[in-house]
Amino acid sequence: METPVCILGLGLIGGSLLRAISPHTHAFGYNRSAATVDAATAAGFDASTDLPATLRRAAADDALIVLATPATTLDEMLSAVAEHAPTCALTDVVSVKGLVADRVRAHGLSARFVGGHPMAGTAESGWQATDPALFWDAIWVVAADDGTDPQVWTQVVELAQGVGARVVPAGSDDHDRAVAGISHLPHLTAAVTAAVGIADGDLATRLAAGSFRDGTRVAGTAPRVQQAMLEANSSALLSALSETIDRLVQARDELRDNGTVHTLVADGHRARKHYESFESRPIEGVTIGEPGWEAALRAAGKRGEVWTG
Amino acid sequence: METPVCILGLGLIGGSLLRAISPHTHAFGYNRSAATVDAATAAGFDASTDLPATLRRAAADDALIVLATPATTLDEMLSAVAEHAPTCALTDVVSVKGLVADRVRAHGLSARFVGGHPMAGTAESGWQATDPALFWDAIWVVAADDGTDPQVWTQVVELAQGVGARVVPAGSDDHDRAVAGISHLPHLTAAVTAAVGIADGDLATRLAAGSFRDGTRVAGTAPRVQQAMLEANSSALLSALSETIDRLVQARDELRDNGTVHTLVADGHRARKHYESFESRPIEGVTIGEPGWEAALRAAGKRGEVWTG
Repeated sequence: METPVCILGLGLIGGSLLRAISPHTHAFGYNRSAATVDAATAAGFDASTDLPATLRRAAADDALIVLATPATTLDEMLSAVAEHAPTCALTDVVSVKGLVADRVRAHGLSARFVGGHPMAGTAESGWQATDPALFWDAIWVVAADDGTDPQVWTQVVELAQGVGARVVPAGSDDHDRAVAGISHLPHLTAAVTAAVGIADGDLATRLAAGSFRDGTRVAGTAPRVQQAMLEANSSALLSALSETIDRLVQARDELRDNGTVHTLVADGHRARKHYESFESRPIEGVTIGEPGWEAALRAAGKRGEVWTG
Repeated sequence: METPVCILGLGLIGGSLLRAISPHTHAFGYNRSAATVDAATAAGFDASTDLPATLRRAAADDALIVLATPATTLDEMLSAVAEHAPTCALTDVVSVKGLVADRVRAHGLSARFVGGHPMAGTAESGWQATDPALFWDAIWVVAADDGTDPQVWTQVVELAQGVGARVVPAGSDDHDRAVAGISHLPHLTAAVTAAVGIADGDLATRLAAGSFRDGTRVAGTAPRVQQAMLEANSSALLSALSETIDRLVQARDELRDNGTVHTLVADGHRARKHYESFESRPIEGVTIGEPGWEAALRAAGKRGEVWTG
């Protein structure tokens, strides 16, 4: 892409993004930790521990700024952006879109902000875990709330597509409900499966095989990373968790009273098969910037369609 | 092994076992379906649809009989064994040991029975899914209840080790509680994760990535296979499911009241890390057949130790 890119935060996502786009885009980054900046610089990338200087450079270059620091530092980063680079196009890679949009609004930066969320990650974190192929074939959600700046939307899409991701547009609220179900809830069910599964002792630990291994994998993610991600989406996660409890209580009653797990197993199987057979379709008939384009993109995103423009 | 092996049922487990041992052991099998027997025979294996004839042959050869048909056919198989081969050594590969031991006792076949459970499987089933490498490096639980015939125990161990499995001894009740936690519960948590996770619609389906994919994998197993396995262990599964519900209710209350998921995430992470770092130790100091050997093996199995004798 032609627009320069300024990445704030060079952890797993931000660092991988810097590595992925540097070969074909003017890109530079900031990280608080000197060790990370040293490692990035030694690997040939353009990085600094000086936040004001990095943002002044972004303003001079009219760069697209990417917020990629932990959600807990959002206000600090947004204050600095508002001070040093208030007119730059702005996006983020945080996993909860409603929360970020609220904070951006509070800092008066909404006009040129378009939220984003690359659906990529591993159980690892930090620069040492970065991978320039992290986004390849991953989904990258780009927010399409009313009042979005079409030019910034297109820049964020180019960034995502430039690192090999597929763009799905979504309303911020729709996104947060969806990821509560398919990303945040699975962390809690993995945790409870791990904790209860081997609570009986090391015979269970020894016998654990495929179903336990795969079903508990994400419970191995660093707890502070999981907590930050899940707690930032607490409202949507509470709904998903309550529905989970309701269904498990129904399953327990059915098993105790009728000796069967039919309902839950059948529902779970149907959902899994739907997921396995689900095929992407491209979004058709929407022109960015035409009246109602954001709503049209949101509707397409709700059908799971992909922006290929 | 020198003992001939007679396998009743040539589905995923029984069929894979026939394929794995035939190269170095005199082995033959029975299956109800002519199509399966034809496929096995065409592949060069010794198989028949004639149950009485197969069992009379087992009796004449003093073979070790392996029950590998679905649990629902246990009584039918045990009646036939009692009629045609009542003095043969007998084992099984069914996933619930208490239930099988009860049925074997009811048919008067306990004296030469030693239960077994190879912890191997895939989402597939039937002869077409069989794989002679299925048991390689898998855990094979061999029951060590009081009154076990040491000679039969050793034969079952040789069978398991002969196909590359590692033997863990366990009391039947201990086994059933352990697999409820690490195998049967994960099917229910996978099912509820799949059903709730994409309940909100196809935006969720489209965004689903690693945590959903791995966390729901076993929900894709054929529902009748899952139901048969889980419902056969309903008592132990009920306990695990109730504990799961209790912990999720605690997590919901903590999230609603204090905005944190700390307790469940920390407990799940600790359990997963324990599982990842758990290392097998060999059982030492037990001689098969000496007074109290079964209890000594059960205690070792509870520590997750492996029989390497």
